[in-house]
Amino acid sequence: MDTLEQTIRKIKEFRDARDWMQFHSPKNLACSISIEANELLEHFQWTSLDESAITPEKKEAIAHEIADVGFYLIELADNLGINLIEAIAQKLAINEAKYPAEKVRGSAKKYTEYPQAPQ
Amino acid sequence: MDTLEQTIRKIKEFRDARDWMQFHSPKNLACSISIEANELLEHFQWTSLDESAITPEKKEAIAHEIADVGFYLIELADNLGINLIEAIAQKLAINEAKYPAEKVRGSAKKYTEYPQAPQ
Amino acid sequence: MDTLEQTIRKIKEFRDARDWMQFHSPKNLACSISIEANELLEHFQWTSLDESAITPEKKEAIAHEIADVGFYLIELADNLGINLIEAIAQKLAINEAKYPAEKVRGSAKKYTEYPQAPQ
Amino acid sequence: MDTLEQTIRKIKEFRDARDWMQFHSPKNLACSISIEANELLEHFQWTSLDESAITPEKKEAIAHEIADVGFYLIELADNLGINLIEAIAQKLAINEAKYPAEKVRGSAKKYTEYPQAPQ
Repeated sequence: MDTLEQTIRKIKEFRDARDWMQFHSPKNLACSISIEANELLEHFQWTSLDESAITPEKKEAIAHEIADVGFYLIELADNLGINLIEAIAQKLAINEAKYPAEKVRGSAKKYTEYPQAPQ
Repeated sequence: MDTLEQTIRKIKEFRDARDWMQFHSPKNLACSISIEANELLEHFQWTSLDESAITPEKKEAIAHEIADVGFYLIELADNLGINLIEAIAQKLAINEAKYPAEKVRGSAKKYTEYPQAPQ
Repeated sequence: MDTLEQTIRKIKEFRDARDWMQFHSPKNLACSISIEANELLEHFQWTSLDESAITPEKKEAIAHEIADVGFYLIELADNLGINLIEAIAQKLAINEAKYPAEKVRGSAKKYTEYPQAPQ
Repeated sequence: MDTLEQTIRKIKEFRDARDWMQFHSPKNLACSISIEANELLEHFQWTSLDESAITPEKKEAIAHEIADVGFYLIELADNLGINLIEAIAQKLAINEAKYPAEKVRGSAKKYTEYPQAPQ
C-alpha cells in the first residue's frame, strides 16, 4: 500500500496532468472539502445513530466520499505547507490539555462548558 | 514523525481514554467532519481566491482546522473498516477514467457536463 | 411583525450601511450559508435524535443560528432575482411529482432508490 | 403569491401526507440544511467571485437548491417554535450593536478582530 507521501504525490500528478492547479486555490479547496463532507453526510441524513444499516454497497459509496474529502484535505494541507500528520499530532496535544481525561470521561460537553476549562 | 497508522492509534487512545466512542457513531462523525470543514472554510469566507493574505497566525489556525477534519475523517474510516489511503487510491483510479487528462485539461467542468462522459 | 419583504429590506439596509455588498458575491454568500448551517448543526453534533435536551438558552442560541442561515439565504435569493417563497412553491410541486404520497409514505428512501422514480 | 405562513402550511402538508415527521428530528433537519447548503455551494465550487457565469439554466438549478435550504430551515424553525422572521429581526438588532456601521464600514473583519468589540 501507498504511504501518505506517495498519496500526496499521486494527488498532485492527477491534478497537474489536468492543469487544475489554477482552480485549486485554498478557498476553492476549502469549499470542496465542505461539499464532499456533505456528500458523505448525505449517506446518514435520515438514519438513526447506529450503523447497522450500512450494506456493502453503501460502505463502498461511503468509502468514495471519505476518499474525496481526504483527497482535497491532503492537497490543501500540502499546498499550504502544512504536514497533516504533524498538524493532527499538535492538535491532539492541545486537546489533551483542553479535555483532561479524568475530567471529561463519558461526557460530550464542549470544553467551554466546563467552568474551569482553559481557554 | 508518526506514520498514518500511529496517528490512527493515537486518535483512538485519545477517544478511549475519555470514553467517547459512545458518541462517535458514523452519523455523528460525519456531522463532525462537516462542522470542522466549515470552521476551516470560515477562514476563507470573505477572502479573494488568492492566498496572499495567509499570515503565520492564520496558517496555524488553518492547520488546527485541517487537523480537526483529518482527525474525524481518519477515525470514521477506521471505525468503518475503510483504509483511507487505499480508498483514495481507488477513487483516483475512478477519477482517472471519468476525467481523461487529454479531454478535461484546463477545464473545471463537472464530468457530467461532458457529453460522452461515463456515468 | 415584519413581512418577508420588510425583512429583505432590513437585511439590505444593514449590509449597505456597512458597504458590505463588495464582499457579498453569490459564491461568498453560498459559503456563508454553509458556514452558518454548520454552526446550527454544531448544536446537535453529539445529541441523540430526539429534542428533549433543548433548554431555553439552547433554543435561543439555535434561533440565532437559524436567523444567520436565513439572513444569507434571503439575501442571496434577492441578489440573484430569485423569489424565495416562489422558489419553494415550485420545488414543492416538483417534489410532489418525485415523491407521490401513496408510494413513499413512511419511507425515507431517496427518490432515486425507487425503481420507477422519474429522473 | 403565498405568504410565509402559507408556505409553512404547505411544507407541513407535504411532509405529513408522506408521514415523514418521524424522520424530521431537529438533528436530521439541521443535517439536511447543511447538505442542501452544500448542493447550493457546489454551483460555485470552481467559479470566480463574480456572478457573470450564471446562465438561466444555472439560475434555475440554484433556485431549486435555495428552495431546499429554505424548505428545511422554515420547517426546523416552525418545529422548534421559532418564528424565522422574528429571529432574523432579533439577530439584526444584535449585529447592529456588534458591528456599528461607522466602525466597520467597508471591512470584512470578524467582530472579534476589533479590539474594543463587545463580546
